[in-house]
Amino acid sequence: MAAIGAMPEINSLRQKSRKSFVTLLLTILTSSQSILIVWSKRAGKYEYSVTTANFLVEALKCALSLAALVRIWRKDGVTDDNRLSTTWDEVKVYPIPAALYLVKNLLQADAPGYQILKNLNIISTGVLYQIILKRKLTEIQWAAFILLCAGCTTAQLNPSSDHVLQTPLQGWVMAIVMALLSGFAGVYTEAIIKKRPSRNINVQNFWLYVFGMIFNAFAIMTQDFDAVMNDGFFHGYSLITVLMILNHALSGIAVSMVMKYADNIVKVYSTSVAMLLTAVVSVFLFGFHLSLAFFLGSIVVSVAIYLHSTNKARR
Amino acid sequence: MAAIGAMPEINSLRQKSRKSFVTLLLTILTSSQSILIVWSKRAGKYEYSVTTANFLVEALKCALSLAALVRIWRKDGVTDDNRLSTTWDEVKVYPIPAALYLVKNLLQADAPGYQILKNLNIISTGVLYQIILKRKLTEIQWAAFILLCAGCTTAQLNPSSDHVLQTPLQGWVMAIVMALLSGFAGVYTEAIIKKRPSRNINVQNFWLYVFGMIFNAFAIMTQDFDAVMNDGFFHGYSLITVLMILNHALSGIAVSMVMKYADNIVKVYSTSVAMLLTAVVSVFLFGFHLSLAFFLGSIVVSVAIYLHSTNKARR
Repeated sequence: MAAIGAMPEINSLRQKSRKSFVTLLLTILTSSQSILIVWSKRAGKYEYSVTTANFLVEALKCALSLAALVRIWRKDGVTDDNRLSTTWDEVKVYPIPAALYLVKNLLQADAPGYQILKNLNIISTGVLYQIILKRKLTEIQWAAFILLCAGCTTAQLNPSSDHVLQTPLQGWVMAIVMALLSGFAGVYTEAIIKKRPSRNINVQNFWLYVFGMIFNAFAIMTQDFDAVMNDGFFHGYSLITVLMILNHALSGIAVSMVMKYADNIVKVYSTSVAMLLTAVVSVFLFGFHLSLAFFLGSIVVSVAIYLHSTNKARR
Repeated sequence: MAAIGAMPEINSLRQKSRKSFVTLLLTILTSSQSILIVWSKRAGKYEYSVTTANFLVEALKCALSLAALVRIWRKDGVTDDNRLSTTWDEVKVYPIPAALYLVKNLLQADAPGYQILKNLNIISTGVLYQIILKRKLTEIQWAAFILLCAGCTTAQLNPSSDHVLQTPLQGWVMAIVMALLSGFAGVYTEAIIKKRPSRNINVQNFWLYVFGMIFNAFAIMTQDFDAVMNDGFFHGYSLITVLMILNHALSGIAVSMVMKYADNIVKVYSTSVAMLLTAVVSVFLFGFHLSLAFFLGSIVVSVAIYLHSTNKARR
């Protein structure tokens, strides 16, 4: 979409600022998502069915992508890159991330000590990023990634964290499987989106979210069919539920943008910073106390970000 | 002392292996020192006066340096570099480290939360190393140093660590003053020892320890004069006291060697690794449990060592 004849430096600058913008957006949205979760937990136990909310998130993302496309069609006309119609060859891989996320969401409820162990996501994303996308992280970037994982875990330490060490083998296997599922879904989404660089991101999102809707409709039917039939689709919804759905949808789109204009590594850093940001904001909103472990973890995460960025600049 | 005509690579290799040897020695001695402390605490409250033990440590180091010198004189004869006699110009700075250590030891008993806050030593050593010795740490090495400090503190976290955050301003000032005293003493010792590279280390040690003896004799007189007069110099000494004195003396000499053949930065890494080693050994010896925080801290310390070493190799 760059103007013909635009100087490459301007394009590169534009790409850089777009990358920074989507990264910042994702960080803020992820953080406010966590804050909404804390808020909703304080408001009492939620009674809506999670599967219907997930379905609505996918539907909203789908609608937003379509709205963006309509605006683009009006402005630029329909081209090969922004037309909605697709081929089997393009769309055949799109159900994979949606399926992976669904499996992960179904498993999520059962894993013990998941809060701590889910930081393994960071490592699994790095490993799969290198294997599947065949892009090499330098040794310093790997060191930074290990620090990011250790720093995030440290920041989340609490007096009961040591129970994680007593997690039975089954729990570890579950955590590793979930980390791999989550990492695989992220990396696979990036592979799909980056495979056709010129294709409009909103078309790519539209198809991704269509399959998200289908898989979540399946989840409603298998898990909450009776509840939805008896109490209605929107039973238990409150203002905060609506805000959470809105936030999830926007941050889902932000994730896609980060995949298109940056990568999974940036996404991992962004969500880690969001976690720290959430804790700091919670001090003001909910009167939480920050632990010494939080400060130490934040220092380690900061150094990780510094190492990652200097090493990238040097290449 | 290198043979005339020896190839520079062999000399460099020799220097490297000597550096590795003294570093390893310091790590093991520091670690066994901490283990002896745990052991002595388990054996019951110690009743000997610490000042007399400190004096004996200095005296033993002095005697060991002299013994080493006698051996060297017999082998190589007395030269300008290994003669014991000295000038006012050489020796005038030698009392400074001993005085600093004494002040630090006198303050030590009063600081609250000292176990956690003493990790500030790492940062103060880095700052003073750069200012006084005028040797530059690269940005990556500084990142590694900050990680080392955060990692060591993380590894030592326990359920009561958060009290450190409630340390009053006075406690922080005290901790920072102690960190600066300790860092200054270390860096100053290195400056003294390195000022005359060809001077035999045992002569340098001898004079350092002579002043150590003098200052500790002063401490006995001001702090424990009555106790020594009434109960005797060796009151309350046990086998473990003797072992601790022996260990302190040997690790003191190892510190001097590290200052001569390596530097304060290596010393800081060495003592940090010793801290981790102590914890692991304590699992086997005393049935201690390792916390999740210990594992996370160890990971961060390992990455710090890796970053420091790769960055050095690259120069």
